[in-house]
Amino acid sequence: MDSVERPLALTLGDPAGIGPDIALLAFQARVAERIPPFVLLGDPEVLAARARTLGVAIAIEAIRQPAAATRRFAEALPVLPIAVSGGVVPGRPDPAAAAAIQQSIEHAVALVREGAASAVVTNPISKAVLYRAGFPFPGHTEFLAKLAGREASDAVMMLVAGDLKVVPVTIHIPLKDVMSALTQSLIVKTLVTTARDLTRYFGMTRPRIAVTGLNPHAGEDGTLGREEIDIIAPAIAAARAQGLDVTGPYPADALFHAEARKTYDAAVAMYHDQALIPFKTLAFETGVNTTLGLPFVRTSPDHGTAFALAGTGRASPRSLIEALRLADAMRACAEGKP
Amino acid sequence: MDSVERPLALTLGDPAGIGPDIALLAFQARVAERIPPFVLLGDPEVLAARARTLGVAIAIEAIRQPAAATRRFAEALPVLPIAVSGGVVPGRPDPAAAAAIQQSIEHAVALVREGAASAVVTNPISKAVLYRAGFPFPGHTEFLAKLAGREASDAVMMLVAGDLKVVPVTIHIPLKDVMSALTQSLIVKTLVTTARDLTRYFGMTRPRIAVTGLNPHAGEDGTLGREEIDIIAPAIAAARAQGLDVTGPYPADALFHAEARKTYDAAVAMYHDQALIPFKTLAFETGVNTTLGLPFVRTSPDHGTAFALAGTGRASPRSLIEALRLADAMRACAEGKP
Repeated sequence: MDSVERPLALTLGDPAGIGPDIALLAFQARVAERIPPFVLLGDPEVLAARARTLGVAIAIEAIRQPAAATRRFAEALPVLPIAVSGGVVPGRPDPAAAAAIQQSIEHAVALVREGAASAVVTNPISKAVLYRAGFPFPGHTEFLAKLAGREASDAVMMLVAGDLKVVPVTIHIPLKDVMSALTQSLIVKTLVTTARDLTRYFGMTRPRIAVTGLNPHAGEDGTLGREEIDIIAPAIAAARAQGLDVTGPYPADALFHAEARKTYDAAVAMYHDQALIPFKTLAFETGVNTTLGLPFVRTSPDHGTAFALAGTGRASPRSLIEALRLADAMRACAEGKP
Repeated sequence: MDSVERPLALTLGDPAGIGPDIALLAFQARVAERIPPFVLLGDPEVLAARARTLGVAIAIEAIRQPAAATRRFAEALPVLPIAVSGGVVPGRPDPAAAAAIQQSIEHAVALVREGAASAVVTNPISKAVLYRAGFPFPGHTEFLAKLAGREASDAVMMLVAGDLKVVPVTIHIPLKDVMSALTQSLIVKTLVTTARDLTRYFGMTRPRIAVTGLNPHAGEDGTLGREEIDIIAPAIAAARAQGLDVTGPYPADALFHAEARKTYDAAVAMYHDQALIPFKTLAFETGVNTTLGLPFVRTSPDHGTAFALAGTGRASPRSLIEALRLADAMRACAEGKP
């Protein structure tokens, strides 16, 4: 199938959150924002109801084959139907929707794996809602890794906003657990995956990767902590021995001002806030979350379900728009054709 | 003595670092940058030699009384002499200079305490150099607290760049030690000192203080760490019970983008990088370090000795210029007169 016919597969996310809102608003902006065709995997009724709530006039069309999405995208928001059980009330999450939320993700991965969709773009889910329904994965990323037949540890989260790319080595764990979770092998694996996928999906022949320390001033030669000496520097050396352009460890507070950002293609940080604080400080609305290390492209807006904003008209589709564009750009780079 | 006659007391810092360079360059820019009169406490010979190295023509004048500094500031860089032992080679730190470095700080504090200087501005020192000479304090701040007759724990570091003010509760300790160092009483003390000195030195009647969590997403209701529930939220409640406008804990990564920064006057963060990453990302060159909780105003440029830049002409006086201006503005606010 020609790449031109394959749409992006956009999941529903939690239907009580802003996923339907931002999908509708992104579709509405498709011409002005030059958004690549996508197919939404979700409930056409939920979308139609949300469109009425928001007061936006958008034709919603249930389709059977993903290829129809691309042909119909100029006229209508194409939806591959997955019914949501129970009523959907914006802002009122309901575990009854969990099955549809999960099916939407499974369907998106199946489509991309069989070549009917070009990449997976996921709308936000609520872990609390899915846990109550028995969802056995910590989050989106682990579920996607499982569906892709990979280990959860193969998946690497990279945040992207224009030229700024930031990768946290550890992510959603308490700060006190970071020290024990950080190992040389985990850092090396993260560096190797990051470098490989920067080449594959961003066309960088030999990406420059800057690595932060863990401690203030990157440990100041061991006086403010030893992880730089014992774990991080050896990991950097191991990655360099594999031919990668990796440098550091650098003091994290000196790595994100405008001049410093010119010196690398991606920054690898040791824990969540070390990566997310500079990223969201610089790119609060435009950031995209992408998962490296999977056998397909996956992006996601860099925000949560925002239940309080669902149906209010105050949710911004900006991050989803960037996620849709980035997924298509990464796909095009990997395939060598726009 | 009229406030107009009292200069700022600027310490020498490590003479092998960029302190002499940036003091000379700041003096040179005094008219264009509207820098308040200061007196340097240091070695006139060292300054004259550095001026020759840099190729800047600046008259350096040894004075005996601080008040002469203000009168002479238009014509010459006023210096209260403190001789540095041994030769000074830019970029080559020497423990022989430690006594003069220390005396400079002591003299500055003495002048401001006796009312002959209006505030203390410190040039960067090297802890490694001072330690080798037997300096018994972890750093500048602890030494200043001692000289002021306060406990080290009374001193609160606040970073200032325009409207952005950030306070780390814990500072120069390994990340693994942050969890045990964070106590409710330490956080409350930091909040109380910050609020009081924002009123005293910045004229804010009831400053709005936003507090970060410690963990990703501020712990996400305990699933990503319990310090928010067990320590930080109770500290915020205790500060509010004292009538302070303190809110949080907020996810640290959502607190520093442009819109969020409008919602508070100062952000209090739990550890070094959580405060310094957003601060230096937004204000790498213009940041000023100020110490609250002392019985006088103290500011400092927000960078180190930068030995490699000393004498090269590549050191920027920007942060020192901002530190001199901020010290004068804080003094003026506290005294109620410009």
